[in-house]
Amino acid sequence: MKAEIIAVGTELLLGQIVNSNAQYLSEELASLGIDVYFQTVVGDNMSRLSQAIKGGAERADLLILTGGLGPTQDDLTKEAVAEVLGKSLHIDRMAMDNIDRFFQGRGTPMTENNRRQALSIDGGTPLPNATGLAVGNAIAENGKFYILLPGPPNEMKPMFEAEAKPWILQHVLTHETPLYSQMLKFAGIGESALETRLLDLIKDQADPTIAPYAKEGEVTIRISTKANTESEAMVKLDKLTEEIASRLSDHLYATGDIPIEKTIIDLMTEKGLTLSAAESCTGGLLMETLTTVPGSATVFLGGIVCYSNAMKEKLLNVPHDLLEGENAPGAVSAETAQVLAEQVRMIVDTDFGLAITGVAGPGYSERKPAGLVYIAISRRGGDTKVIELNLKGNRDTIRLRSTKTILYHLWKQIKDN
Amino acid sequence: MKAEIIAVGTELLLGQIVNSNAQYLSEELASLGIDVYFQTVVGDNMSRLSQAIKGGAERADLLILTGGLGPTQDDLTKEAVAEVLGKSLHIDRMAMDNIDRFFQGRGTPMTENNRRQALSIDGGTPLPNATGLAVGNAIAENGKFYILLPGPPNEMKPMFEAEAKPWILQHVLTHETPLYSQMLKFAGIGESALETRLLDLIKDQADPTIAPYAKEGEVTIRISTKANTESEAMVKLDKLTEEIASRLSDHLYATGDIPIEKTIIDLMTEKGLTLSAAESCTGGLLMETLTTVPGSATVFLGGIVCYSNAMKEKLLNVPHDLLEGENAPGAVSAETAQVLAEQVRMIVDTDFGLAITGVAGPGYSERKPAGLVYIAISRRGGDTKVIELNLKGNRDTIRLRSTKTILYHLWKQIKDN
Repeated sequence: MKAEIIAVGTELLLGQIVNSNAQYLSEELASLGIDVYFQTVVGDNMSRLSQAIKGGAERADLLILTGGLGPTQDDLTKEAVAEVLGKSLHIDRMAMDNIDRFFQGRGTPMTENNRRQALSIDGGTPLPNATGLAVGNAIAENGKFYILLPGPPNEMKPMFEAEAKPWILQHVLTHETPLYSQMLKFAGIGESALETRLLDLIKDQADPTIAPYAKEGEVTIRISTKANTESEAMVKLDKLTEEIASRLSDHLYATGDIPIEKTIIDLMTEKGLTLSAAESCTGGLLMETLTTVPGSATVFLGGIVCYSNAMKEKLLNVPHDLLEGENAPGAVSAETAQVLAEQVRMIVDTDFGLAITGVAGPGYSERKPAGLVYIAISRRGGDTKVIELNLKGNRDTIRLRSTKTILYHLWKQIKDN
Repeated sequence: MKAEIIAVGTELLLGQIVNSNAQYLSEELASLGIDVYFQTVVGDNMSRLSQAIKGGAERADLLILTGGLGPTQDDLTKEAVAEVLGKSLHIDRMAMDNIDRFFQGRGTPMTENNRRQALSIDGGTPLPNATGLAVGNAIAENGKFYILLPGPPNEMKPMFEAEAKPWILQHVLTHETPLYSQMLKFAGIGESALETRLLDLIKDQADPTIAPYAKEGEVTIRISTKANTESEAMVKLDKLTEEIASRLSDHLYATGDIPIEKTIIDLMTEKGLTLSAAESCTGGLLMETLTTVPGSATVFLGGIVCYSNAMKEKLLNVPHDLLEGENAPGAVSAETAQVLAEQVRMIVDTDFGLAITGVAGPGYSERKPAGLVYIAISRRGGDTKVIELNLKGNRDTIRLRSTKTILYHLWKQIKDN
């Protein structure tokens, strides 16, 4: 089963927005076992759009189009697909009711062009839009499948998940054995080291298949298998997950697409543990990351960004002798990291206190190079663990990797006890 | 002049990475006055890649290919272009020297496949890679132009800027009058309100042209004009910028692609002003944003993330009566925002103190809805300004908009005095 993704919109060709829809859909289709051979972007232009649809239908079995379903004369996707298929368009009653309700609720009159958002291709299936006004469409014709989704990701993704994916499973993959996948997420290990530890499994892979890939600071593996039922698939997936976990228990932090900060917040919530942080070179990134997790307030109580030495002394009681003077270790040192972690833990009165101090760059600080970073984890009634990092990259990368690394070490400390 | 961008790489078709190169190149080409009619993504497959190149050359005058220049057997872009053009490949001496030096510097032996990264198409121009090993290529053939760039953005962007863009100006746009552009950046105003205030200019636009677009929390306008010399262009661009500035002086914060936090840090550095912050619902995002700017340490001295009420009392001296009790205003209130801003300014001893407290959601807090946020700016020897925001969106959006809004108000306060 071959698929092609066609994104429609002149704003993409002007570089005003990134085509993140193609990435999302490609990932989703891969997880269904469908191969994407081409992604195309075309502007709001009838002849070029028709050309792209015809070209796509020659190459692929399934075409997914995003964008161009809106109310203006520039929104041409439904017209173009209908024209290529020799079909007409009609107003879908339910979609029109949804649009009418929206404008009644806002108390503003509906302009006539909004009716275009309720158009549906004759013989197709309208796909309801739970978060917007433009109805989607799915249609099979001459052994090819066409799915039309809105352009805004906050409309496209829910519509794909709730409407298009079930339609694909029912109409497109009718005669294929369904593919089941599981994501495994790792921290504190690079992609190549992880591959080396799983080399025999990756080399021998037949069923389930193993596909590793790396994003900034974390590594993900997707394991997939075809099976007639979910429970049959889960037996195979669980067995492989267990084997991988037995080799990488200090790195496998989640089964499922979950960031490590959520794993930490959930684990600490469950154990009734609390957390605080003192940040120097990361300037708030660690705390910002932790507090992206809804419900983090019961675990993460607060912390201090001590960007200047004066602040380290004043708010976090770092001795002046440690920070300044001929032979002082300096702000970027294991000693200072330790004091910061212990002090913030005591000041905020939490079970754990984290600290990051280092040189984010560009250039040197205290005659120390960019990338030299100390992280510390202080635990109530326990020792303080201090680790020296020598990171590569630019300012943003160094800040991000410092944050990911301390989260990894925190997770490792709390997961076992 | 029509262009097409072809990104090569199976990892794009699997959805493992977003095609941000296409966005960058589209924006750059637009600024040169070149129209992009198609963007294509194709995998590491010789026949499909050749098909994409042939199709692109039928539709466009200029093809820019990214990716597939690396050392492995999967990297096929140079071979594919050479094949389509009926050319051979040779090892470029300077690129090979660069690769040899790299491996000598690392003290590791070079594996034979790295020689592939020095390949260049006969009759083409090798484009040196300042940040990596794979040499780029530019070649003109049968009235069509082909530019081959590496896939990693940190290699592609510098090569485009230093090598490909001058080549385009010299060989592709030889007979065209050059296009000059200027970016204008606005804060504290939405795209539609901005368009309304510039409607007559946008409607009458002929030269320079005006292209507005919105990203999260800020609006950008690009004004462009064709001229024979830069100084001739600048006369026209400066005149229009002045007209726009006279209408929107409270919103136009930069000419050039600069984030508002950099404008603020630069302005405060110049004026010798210092800054601190107390954050509740944004959890560190404001401080993190400010400290992304290199050199921010002389302006931003530090701050406190007071996620819990206890922390607001303990570290920032917010009176208990303000936070809790039957008729207390609560943590999410104008009163609390004001105390937080004033206290953090006094504790850290800075000229300005910022505070954000609100409900980021999901759901309610203190029976107040997600999106209700109070921001406060306290100034040494001045009044404290408190503003109530009623923001829409999810947790991430509310946090981002709160941050952008307080930065806008801070900029407005400091720009004039």
